[in-house]
Amino acid sequence: MKVVITGGTGMLGRRLALRLLAADELVGPSGQAEALERLFLVDAFAPAEPPPEDPRVEIVTANICDPAVVRRVIGDSVDSVFHFAAVVSGGAEADFDLGYQVNLDGARNVFEACRASAGTPRVVFTSSLAVYGGFRDIVDDTPLTPQTSYGAQKATGELMVNDYSRKGFFDGRSLRLPTIVVRPGKPNKAASGFASSILREPLQGDTVNCPVSAETRMLILSPRRAVQAFIDIHNADAEQLGFQRGVMMNGISPTIGEIVAALREIAGARVAERISWQPDAQIQGMVDNWPWFATGARARGLGFEPDGSIEEVIQSFIDDELGGQIAG
Amino acid sequence: MKVVITGGTGMLGRRLALRLLAADELVGPSGQAEALERLFLVDAFAPAEPPPEDPRVEIVTANICDPAVVRRVIGDSVDSVFHFAAVVSGGAEADFDLGYQVNLDGARNVFEACRASAGTPRVVFTSSLAVYGGFRDIVDDTPLTPQTSYGAQKATGELMVNDYSRKGFFDGRSLRLPTIVVRPGKPNKAASGFASSILREPLQGDTVNCPVSAETRMLILSPRRAVQAFIDIHNADAEQLGFQRGVMMNGISPTIGEIVAALREIAGARVAERISWQPDAQIQGMVDNWPWFATGARARGLGFEPDGSIEEVIQSFIDDELGGQIAG
Repeated sequence: MKVVITGGTGMLGRRLALRLLAADELVGPSGQAEALERLFLVDAFAPAEPPPEDPRVEIVTANICDPAVVRRVIGDSVDSVFHFAAVVSGGAEADFDLGYQVNLDGARNVFEACRASAGTPRVVFTSSLAVYGGFRDIVDDTPLTPQTSYGAQKATGELMVNDYSRKGFFDGRSLRLPTIVVRPGKPNKAASGFASSILREPLQGDTVNCPVSAETRMLILSPRRAVQAFIDIHNADAEQLGFQRGVMMNGISPTIGEIVAALREIAGARVAERISWQPDAQIQGMVDNWPWFATGARARGLGFEPDGSIEEVIQSFIDDELGGQIAG
Repeated sequence: MKVVITGGTGMLGRRLALRLLAADELVGPSGQAEALERLFLVDAFAPAEPPPEDPRVEIVTANICDPAVVRRVIGDSVDSVFHFAAVVSGGAEADFDLGYQVNLDGARNVFEACRASAGTPRVVFTSSLAVYGGFRDIVDDTPLTPQTSYGAQKATGELMVNDYSRKGFFDGRSLRLPTIVVRPGKPNKAASGFASSILREPLQGDTVNCPVSAETRMLILSPRRAVQAFIDIHNADAEQLGFQRGVMMNGISPTIGEIVAALREIAGARVAERISWQPDAQIQGMVDNWPWFATGARARGLGFEPDGSIEEVIQSFIDDELGGQIAG
């Protein structure tokens, strides 16, 4: 199989790539899992973490805003495309034009290139719970009423995925992600970044400020479960998805207080005390607008599993990213 | 006031223009109705019906797909823009690229030009009940799950109107229209065209085929009520609209059988018998997917009034378009 991952050297893209290289899990045109032959990791940025070393991998440093480049990478034929490349929520809010260029026009370039290629590739679009706005409890029929530019752009991408799929131009799927916690590496511009930082920094011996109250509830999913969900939605039967290709991925919903209590339990009081509590009204205001609970029957029915507990989320970070070592 | 109507020589655009020229009804920057000084009617097509003769009117034959042209017409300052120009449902389904170019990129050109102009113009975007799919009864919280390219493009336009308005780039509003009946003039490519033809042609002495069953229910609004609703949503208080700028316009929901019975009642059996009944499975299939009832509390609360009855719809066509004369 030829597989393309946009944003392929980013946090989720890279982890998905490592999973795909480790085992042939993706369902190909035969309807069965097929051997991965070539994996293109397209990213606007040079890799921040070491890219996978594997003869099947090609790193392409390119901007998806250029339709010719996207067309060239996807080429005349492709089996599967995972589209992660995006300007994150805070970035799209700060630079309106850039957000629409990358998140809308860039996605459309990917969709058009897939349409132009032979066959009917599976296209997995990364959406976000930011497509919702003003609802506390998200269920399958909750309307998409985004209240950020990022959310509006993701909702638009979902509409296109449905429409291109309906037309038979490709076989698309969209996964609406909760906040990914614990994000490894450096903070990005996502407004939700603190939810990872309050775990990541203390576990690595650094201090960190928590800008929101302990009562604040976060709807989260670990990178490990997210990567699994991307493979699951890629492999899901198109018939089972039906017309509406967007699936809300469920998450767990601990409060910040519960997250810090779990950190204390797992890593000890000294680690948990590396967190300071200076409120930031702007971040609190944004977060207060996010959904608290996602309990979609659809994701459950398709077998997409959220984490079992906040403890599992923290432990998977320690195991996957810290080699099991806590800076105690 | 300077007002721009895209699709300004089309069916609804022209009728709105005539209304605006007849009386100063639009709320301007002062918060009160202000005098109309200049009215630009932008349209890709030369006027099919005689354009309004008035020194305040300027007809601009131009394609909204050209951002420079749109920028020039909207100019450095504009008070109100009504955006009607679009490729209709059947057209967008037949020509995928053209649909996205006009209905998405063209709308975005209009939005960008309004953003670039001084002040905060009121922008009224014409949406459609085609943004819904798979629901029989439409209420305010019904999710937008379009099942046509046209519907996907209109839903995208609504997302942008919300986002540009939230950013303060303009003061946008979107009105989701039911099927407009009776459309005067020639049939267009809209899949819903028959709902007008079965009244328009017999009332003018022509025969017509009805491609759907008498039990088929149509959710409709007259051009007269539609024009009124556009003025109403333009003048609505932004605070009252809130974050979500899209308002579903309610309609009435007669069956085709009830529509023809009303025609017979008003115009006589001879007129009603000009309808033949050859079913068209493709049209029936599309129509069976459309919503039957729209009962939004929001439109009602804002005072947007649908027609009182199918008899009123037919009579308003006879009065407004046929000078009161039926071809008996």
